[in-house]
Amino acid sequence: MRIGLLGTGNVARALAHGWRAAGHDVLLGSRRPEERTGLDLPVAGLGETAAHAEVLVNATPGGVSVALLHSIGAPALAGTLLIDVGVGLSDDFTELTHPNSSLGELIQEAFPLTPVVKTLCTMDSSAMTAPGELTEPGTVFLSGDDIEAKRTTGHLLTDLGWPPSSQLDIGGITTARGQEHFAFLFMGIADGVGSHTFNIKVVTRRQTDTP
Amino acid sequence: MRIGLLGTGNVARALAHGWRAAGHDVLLGSRRPEERTGLDLPVAGLGETAAHAEVLVNATPGGVSVALLHSIGAPALAGTLLIDVGVGLSDDFTELTHPNSSLGELIQEAFPLTPVVKTLCTMDSSAMTAPGELTEPGTVFLSGDDIEAKRTTGHLLTDLGWPPSSQLDIGGITTARGQEHFAFLFMGIADGVGSHTFNIKVVTRRQTDTP
Repeated sequence: MRIGLLGTGNVARALAHGWRAAGHDVLLGSRRPEERTGLDLPVAGLGETAAHAEVLVNATPGGVSVALLHSIGAPALAGTLLIDVGVGLSDDFTELTHPNSSLGELIQEAFPLTPVVKTLCTMDSSAMTAPGELTEPGTVFLSGDDIEAKRTTGHLLTDLGWPPSSQLDIGGITTARGQEHFAFLFMGIADGVGSHTFNIKVVTRRQTDTP
Repeated sequence: MRIGLLGTGNVARALAHGWRAAGHDVLLGSRRPEERTGLDLPVAGLGETAAHAEVLVNATPGGVSVALLHSIGAPALAGTLLIDVGVGLSDDFTELTHPNSSLGELIQEAFPLTPVVKTLCTMDSSAMTAPGELTEPGTVFLSGDDIEAKRTTGHLLTDLGWPPSSQLDIGGITTARGQEHFAFLFMGIADGVGSHTFNIKVVTRRQTDTP
């Protein structure tokens, strides 16, 4: 597929490399593409990236994502699946920019003709594209109102190494809140284990023979 | 140990049964003990419960916990380990009562002579005392500023069935924020797996032979 990734940071680059290795056509979108050279990945302007993309990925800082998407414009985004992996935290990572809401919800509200799926934002970029480097892949969550959009996102996660058994659909776009608010526990766990390369795995009840 | 549990809801009762089974002397504390009969557990007033306790557990609704602890009074709580398992959510579970803060932090701030440890609030009461019923116990988190208080809490978690290998110290009491904000992801996962009896397990990088 033609995948446009908005952003040129660690997350956008890691995902672009992962999807390119799986055979997809990737393009990074930047406000200043002329300054983003030497990335070993193609870079274009935001509008050009959106026009290129069958699937667009928001990997820009959560506090500015909505404004940045507005600069591309709702008509250019209409009908395009938007995978949002941004996290709405202040620049110093101490405060939620959207307490009691989420970036995912706000994007879906601002762009109602663009199906939004929130995923991958509960882990570091180093774990997003290398679930096989962990002792187990753990769980990746999907939030979104559009079933077909979640199905396509699921295929793209599988292409990054996430088996379907490790993907968990947790509901509509309002559940993006849970994924984003996990940022604080993420930071605590990172301190506790001494690494950003980890994930969480949902463990459920043991199967028994009794009904 | 003599464990006083503030609250008579599912969480307080589950923990009381779990610790009583491990040989501890438990007492539930209620604002209206005379109305809390038939629980198969001893119940007393809040002040009497605090006086009884070597370890006090806050299992009251997060929105009222600080006021309730003030009604017991700082002198009565000074020097007593307080394990806080409350979650600061609105009554309809849709909003954080302490966005960009946490109940654990607020309690520690209000009662500086009482060492506070936040734990067990990332799971349902059904999982707190029966980690062995899950396919794996998963991870239980500890937040707190007092090392000795965390050590004692760790022993009490082991008594509930949590092996030390499943306990993760994530830092000072400010990291209680991460545990409490997990509530939103908890609700999404519960919908996704169709049960409240689950936990999350931290999975880290695979060990390799290379340095």
